[in-house]
Amino acid sequence: MLDAIAAANSGHVVAYGEDEYTHRAERVFKDHFGSNAEVFFVLTGTGANVLSLASFTRSFNSVICAETAHIQVDECGAPEKFTQCKLLTVCTPDGKLTVDGIKKYLHGFGVEHHAQPRVISISQPTEMGTVYTPAEISSLADLAHQNNMILHMDGARLANAAVSLDIPFKSFTTDAGVDVLSFGGTKNGMLFGESVVFLRPGMSAEFKFLRKQGMQLASKMRYISAQFEAYLSKDVWRTNAMHANKMAQLLYEKTSSVPGIKITQKVQANAVFAIIPANLVEALQEKYFFYVWDEATCEVRWMTSFDTTPADIDGFSSFLASKMAGG
Amino acid sequence: MLDAIAAANSGHVVAYGEDEYTHRAERVFKDHFGSNAEVFFVLTGTGANVLSLASFTRSFNSVICAETAHIQVDECGAPEKFTQCKLLTVCTPDGKLTVDGIKKYLHGFGVEHHAQPRVISISQPTEMGTVYTPAEISSLADLAHQNNMILHMDGARLANAAVSLDIPFKSFTTDAGVDVLSFGGTKNGMLFGESVVFLRPGMSAEFKFLRKQGMQLASKMRYISAQFEAYLSKDVWRTNAMHANKMAQLLYEKTSSVPGIKITQKVQANAVFAIIPANLVEALQEKYFFYVWDEATCEVRWMTSFDTTPADIDGFSSFLASKMAGG
Amino acid sequence: MLDAIAAANSGHVVAYGEDEYTHRAERVFKDHFGSNAEVFFVLTGTGANVLSLASFTRSFNSVICAETAHIQVDECGAPEKFTQCKLLTVCTPDGKLTVDGIKKYLHGFGVEHHAQPRVISISQPTEMGTVYTPAEISSLADLAHQNNMILHMDGARLANAAVSLDIPFKSFTTDAGVDVLSFGGTKNGMLFGESVVFLRPGMSAEFKFLRKQGMQLASKMRYISAQFEAYLSKDVWRTNAMHANKMAQLLYEKTSSVPGIKITQKVQANAVFAIIPANLVEALQEKYFFYVWDEATCEVRWMTSFDTTPADIDGFSSFLASKMAGG
Amino acid sequence: MLDAIAAANSGHVVAYGEDEYTHRAERVFKDHFGSNAEVFFVLTGTGANVLSLASFTRSFNSVICAETAHIQVDECGAPEKFTQCKLLTVCTPDGKLTVDGIKKYLHGFGVEHHAQPRVISISQPTEMGTVYTPAEISSLADLAHQNNMILHMDGARLANAAVSLDIPFKSFTTDAGVDVLSFGGTKNGMLFGESVVFLRPGMSAEFKFLRKQGMQLASKMRYISAQFEAYLSKDVWRTNAMHANKMAQLLYEKTSSVPGIKITQKVQANAVFAIIPANLVEALQEKYFFYVWDEATCEVRWMTSFDTTPADIDGFSSFLASKMAGG
Repeated sequence: MLDAIAAANSGHVVAYGEDEYTHRAERVFKDHFGSNAEVFFVLTGTGANVLSLASFTRSFNSVICAETAHIQVDECGAPEKFTQCKLLTVCTPDGKLTVDGIKKYLHGFGVEHHAQPRVISISQPTEMGTVYTPAEISSLADLAHQNNMILHMDGARLANAAVSLDIPFKSFTTDAGVDVLSFGGTKNGMLFGESVVFLRPGMSAEFKFLRKQGMQLASKMRYISAQFEAYLSKDVWRTNAMHANKMAQLLYEKTSSVPGIKITQKVQANAVFAIIPANLVEALQEKYFFYVWDEATCEVRWMTSFDTTPADIDGFSSFLASKMAGG
Repeated sequence: MLDAIAAANSGHVVAYGEDEYTHRAERVFKDHFGSNAEVFFVLTGTGANVLSLASFTRSFNSVICAETAHIQVDECGAPEKFTQCKLLTVCTPDGKLTVDGIKKYLHGFGVEHHAQPRVISISQPTEMGTVYTPAEISSLADLAHQNNMILHMDGARLANAAVSLDIPFKSFTTDAGVDVLSFGGTKNGMLFGESVVFLRPGMSAEFKFLRKQGMQLASKMRYISAQFEAYLSKDVWRTNAMHANKMAQLLYEKTSSVPGIKITQKVQANAVFAIIPANLVEALQEKYFFYVWDEATCEVRWMTSFDTTPADIDGFSSFLASKMAGG
Repeated sequence: MLDAIAAANSGHVVAYGEDEYTHRAERVFKDHFGSNAEVFFVLTGTGANVLSLASFTRSFNSVICAETAHIQVDECGAPEKFTQCKLLTVCTPDGKLTVDGIKKYLHGFGVEHHAQPRVISISQPTEMGTVYTPAEISSLADLAHQNNMILHMDGARLANAAVSLDIPFKSFTTDAGVDVLSFGGTKNGMLFGESVVFLRPGMSAEFKFLRKQGMQLASKMRYISAQFEAYLSKDVWRTNAMHANKMAQLLYEKTSSVPGIKITQKVQANAVFAIIPANLVEALQEKYFFYVWDEATCEVRWMTSFDTTPADIDGFSSFLASKMAGG
Repeated sequence: MLDAIAAANSGHVVAYGEDEYTHRAERVFKDHFGSNAEVFFVLTGTGANVLSLASFTRSFNSVICAETAHIQVDECGAPEKFTQCKLLTVCTPDGKLTVDGIKKYLHGFGVEHHAQPRVISISQPTEMGTVYTPAEISSLADLAHQNNMILHMDGARLANAAVSLDIPFKSFTTDAGVDVLSFGGTKNGMLFGESVVFLRPGMSAEFKFLRKQGMQLASKMRYISAQFEAYLSKDVWRTNAMHANKMAQLLYEKTSSVPGIKITQKVQANAVFAIIPANLVEALQEKYFFYVWDEATCEVRWMTSFDTTPADIDGFSSFLASKMAGG
């Protein structure tokens, strides 16, 4: 990634995205997502999500998402701030939305007392580390389109899902009926930079204004574009995500066998969820960084990454086991 | 009410609330809610709720309410539009919030990734026709204040609650720890006009600007003030609400005995909730106006009002019984 | 007006505008503004203006108006709050926009760094008491439409302009190219109630949602509709406005001859602007209500109304003259 | 700058700014702006400006700025979008605000019909390439503070002003009464990254929430912090800005002597404004990138930069001279 930035750091180029680095990166996105795909580079994952939603909504619309969705719990209300829309949340044990879970919100169309549903937003992988199948995604896309709605996918870690499913990006995005995608790179090795990808024609006319107004237009955009080009054209995404997923499997194996540890979700990407004794959290967090996901049950989330090593996993698992044993 | 308006419709008075009608009405509110109460007149119930919330929030705050709350389901997203805050909803069988139900949201204070909880909003009576006791309200107020939060009460039908509890307004608002109140008159006999009442000192400094910006400042405010003065100083509120509540009890008695009709909520104010056969809805709605509350279960809401008559109740119940009997 | 309200205050009618009073009022608006006119009733003049602008804008648009426009100086920033758009102001000596004055803002279309101009908003009569001719309005409409923009007219006092021009409403609105109109009644005799009128087909699809979200949907709308029907179908508007304009002419005659008083604007509707000695303001305001328009020059605005009497004018002019003479 | 990023690209560090690079950069800012200075890193210049304004405003406030201000003309309405405040603009020949120019807006305090003035925003250097003296800044700060307002400085190119004045940053910011500063690095050599600096205690409590909600929180913040540390601790800022300013002087000398070219502003930083024949714009822009500042007069803006060379200046000036001579 540094090499890509360094290569982009020479000569004078036009600012705000009208440069050759950006044009090349745009072509690489079409290779992965189909010829109708139009990509726009932004600065943060929150920016990618919020501007995706804003592109399809008026303030009287609502957005349906899982109660665990990043847009609901981890973005400080930025979606409401920028779009002014209502977020409607669905309880879901594994982070996945289902047709049945959504249906209770699909009424009141045309009635002015109710915010009008306009977007279904899913995360792939979900915030619980699970991965939608293409068929699951298609069923949500059909439901959306039958109701004049849009399917948005938060793909901050999309590479981890692609590796998990072992199919091309296009098979579970464009081909499965997704309309707009937040595609991230920062969580899988890039220094900075995220993107919004419109997967069908005619959807992006307003985007450049929303991006500028959303304070997401980088003046020296080539430093993002160059990273994305390197990330997507050279299999960096695959290598990094494959490694992270493998480390999560290793972590799952090592920790699920520790007496007293309960793994709570399927491990399909690069996250392991576990319930641990509350009195161990502090000791573990002194040595390792992780979030407590649910204070009430003491469910924690352990993430692996492109630069996690087997030794890291061993060290953590041993430390955990010794603590569980009263060490 | 028309007499009150007509009386206010003479002579020239200063616009925008600096008139004697408004000053008199302000004093009547102090009589009912305590000497610290400061009332501001607005134009709609949604306006009263939204401006109440806006008075205490910044866009990065969140508001906790029941999933059935009017601010959540019936105001077309106006709270999000104006305050830009996130609404966090609690599942509740009877429309009432409880300390336990709220606690899952009271974390992440000071953490910038999470919208910061700032208001607990309850409706009295609830949208399910149930009524909070003063003790229930106090426990929510204590929870709010312990967390540097505010307790808001949506009192669009507050008179029905007061009559149901048979205690003064002040006992279950100011004295129970409520900070700010939406107090309505339109649903209990007034032609138009709602109000926001701040129940503690030092809370209202910004309100006049928010009201103007929220398009809720009536130029000829005396027509609202005069109605409120008549409504509150002459027991109109009590007479009307007592009648409506009595009609709801009558409706409950007559319909609960109809075979096949299941009453789903306690009838404590002027609403009756029932599950009826879905195939009867259309026939009933041709003669009577009511909402289907839950499409999935065919739960309906029947409201009574200050001008409902016993004959109305008889007519409706007989019609329902005959339809249930296959008529 | 009270009679109209009283007539509407009988029997049960459907709430939120689905009543016969509202339907009748809608037809009367078509009589005045053409068969394509669609009227929506709202609660305040600010509401009418803001919702008119919101119907045509996204947050990255801008609205061009006179620096004296009500939307710019008298609505506490409600247009920016609700539409989030930028207001671009034009200096104008008489309150009127001109093609030349606007042109400096008509660039940067399609460039994301600049808010995109979308609406030209004029007031008729202007805030300076002057009245646009139909030809002046047409030239602004043409400019707007050539640039894919919309012409909005703030007609809070439109009746005064119609009487001044002595032509039907339609001649200087629909026929002159105006797209959307804020039409007011409160300043010309109604107790409350304003309206938004779309003058061309296909513009109003989103309005009902914006109105609800803008807290401008009256539950008992018939009390507004009934007033508008009475106001527009029975020449109340003309009688009242004609009287107010005549009183303004009388005021102009009486005060322009007072030595030391300088009338600063043409008197074409029901406002007289004058520069008076700063040290007289307080004494005059003790007896008469008026605004100081420009603190620097001590320009004041005197408004006449449907209930101003010749005796009022005489009294004011005599008092002014005596004060000027050192009385 | 690349070296700084590369140095930060090693090992695992805590995300979102709780890292040693960020803490070191914070100390460097205190060295330059005083011990009360608190810096927050953001992603774009628009982000820095908008979040500065949002920190001090409610939606009913207004912000006073030059009609040429970046926040007014070049940010696609992002300030209105995020703060919902009104921007009040002052005509100014040289881009500088003056006490006299602002005073017309300092009325209506406490009157709910008017947006309440809360911030004076100036750019240093101005968008016209001129530089405020410390005394000029102090007079604006005094005016602001007398009216319970805040002085904001847009310092996207602050280094160019410091070099021009030849005094420390602190002398014309903190010591001159500025309250909050947008301090930029991208336009003077950094790859990306901007900052907001609060110059007095007690102003920053809400900032972290606004930054997250404004989509300006970088997860890998150390890549910004490391650049700022290198930029400010090693005189990179001074060397780069001194060079850019010197090149602007050279450009001024070379072009002001070309017959037919009129330089329109004092050249005090790194911009030269000139009126040129409209028919030369296209030919010049084919070889050189610059903006037409005013279409009506064909005033153009030529910027110099840290990497402009004397040969660039020579080439441009010669090309211009030859074109002017009919070449």
